[in-house]
Amino acid sequence: MNTSEAIRSRRSVRRFRPEPVPPDRIERLLDAARWAPSGLNNQPWRFVVVQAPEVREQLARCTKYGRILRSAPLAVAVFLDTASSYHREKDLQGVGACLQNLLLEAHATGLGACWLGEILNQREEVERILGVPAHLELMAVVAVGFPEGDRHGNPQRLPLEDLIVGRF
Amino acid sequence: MNTSEAIRSRRSVRRFRPEPVPPDRIERLLDAARWAPSGLNNQPWRFVVVQAPEVREQLARCTKYGRILRSAPLAVAVFLDTASSYHREKDLQGVGACLQNLLLEAHATGLGACWLGEILNQREEVERILGVPAHLELMAVVAVGFPEGDRHGNPQRLPLEDLIVGRF
Repeated sequence: MNTSEAIRSRRSVRRFRPEPVPPDRIERLLDAARWAPSGLNNQPWRFVVVQAPEVREQLARCTKYGRILRSAPLAVAVFLDTASSYHREKDLQGVGACLQNLLLEAHATGLGACWLGEILNQREEVERILGVPAHLELMAVVAVGFPEGDRHGNPQRLPLEDLIVGRF
Repeated sequence: MNTSEAIRSRRSVRRFRPEPVPPDRIERLLDAARWAPSGLNNQPWRFVVVQAPEVREQLARCTKYGRILRSAPLAVAVFLDTASSYHREKDLQGVGACLQNLLLEAHATGLGACWLGEILNQREEVERILGVPAHLELMAVVAVGFPEGDRHGNPQRLPLEDLIVGRF
């Protein structure tokens, strides 16, 4: 899919067909994610891949959007490696760029995804479930699968003229 | 350009041809940026478009990478609207997704861009130069133009197996 089209037609997908995401597709998503830019090229992102239903269920209990994780055959937990971090604000932005690459790659290749941020309310519990070392800090969990039904992401965006606050 | 290809072939561009970026291309870049996802769809990003050479020169003096801003015919200053913010970490990630959309749209349409983060060391001075209200906080400046010569962005990325820290 054309880049400009993918950027504008991507929406959150919250319901998925049951079939698993093939292993090569999972690698491809994470490969796209790792091509994000980062300050000093420090690449502070790390990933945990979750397909096992019992682990997805444990994650689902950490968020009020658990039904999305129960529907998705794949969850990717994205972490900031604080040991690789050099500037927290820039690293958070870099992780956002990494997440966007993952979402765009999914959409452009026929998968659907939903960026779950509310689960950060249970950050420590998620880190415990996934057994990550203390220097990894949860940034988001992305639910991924083949979309079922319509996409329900919010297509509303502020008009561009409201976002451009100055011109020189 | 295909999305997967754009994600993997995008590099920072630091030298530009002198011709300006046409107005419709500028709008298109910012339109792509605004299609990023954000928590609660709060869309906390705001933009200042800088083409005037004397203002670019003032910005160039705020960063040790000033030569990039002197070479680029266009600079886009990206701000977080703290009045629209609801969760700082998620908003910083959302701004990163917004920046990545802008970079990918530029690359996919034949422009080049460089995300400048070091200029945050002079955040208050940049905010003063651009005259933005106090609730807008500088996140990055992106230099944009038609690329001249080779792209010098760092193509090194950590191997995927080093980034995947767990599988379930």
